[in-house]
Amino acid sequence: MPILEVAMLNVIPGRESEFEAAFREASTIIASRPGYRWHRLHRCLEEGWRYLLTVEWERREDHTEGFRGSPEYRLWRALLHHFYDPFPVVEHFVEVAL
Amino acid sequence: MPILEVAMLNVIPGRESEFEAAFREASTIIASRPGYRWHRLHRCLEEGWRYLLTVEWERREDHTEGFRGSPEYRLWRALLHHFYDPFPVVEHFVEVAL
Repeated sequence: MPILEVAMLNVIPGRESEFEAAFREASTIIASRPGYRWHRLHRCLEEGWRYLLTVEWERREDHTEGFRGSPEYRLWRALLHHFYDPFPVVEHFVEVAL
Repeated sequence: MPILEVAMLNVIPGRESEFEAAFREASTIIASRPGYRWHRLHRCLEEGWRYLLTVEWERREDHTEGFRGSPEYRLWRALLHHFYDPFPVVEHFVEVAL
């Protein structure tokens, strides 16, 4: 069963456009990693500086070990991490059959 | 552009199975509402009592006015709201083109 990585990203207000441009560049990095399936970025209507990042991976380790342990992750971090305040909590989820 | 309703649900620890059963029943309620497109429930691997609910609506008002103003919402609430602690923040998101 695939794993959904979920992070609520609070971007420093006023830097949303810059963040979105950097995120587009960073998207090509994550999309090339083993075990990656898809990712999406959503922007909050109530608080426009808040974003929801969802990434589907084949296995949790594809994210926590494969991606985070890769040289590409350093570029991802350099592109994106300075936009966040506070630094996001990242969790992993499995779909519940309904 | 469709709207994603997002709620991080913290369920009282120990009541997860009961919540999931109630949620399955409640699923038929929300799925019959005008403007509803799909919904999913995900369970957190790090904190097993935390769930991510996502619901796609055609318009935000389909949720905030249509669903919440309907008699069916009272049943949804009666089935589910007593499982949450604290009561969740519900927000709405639009997808960012990447």
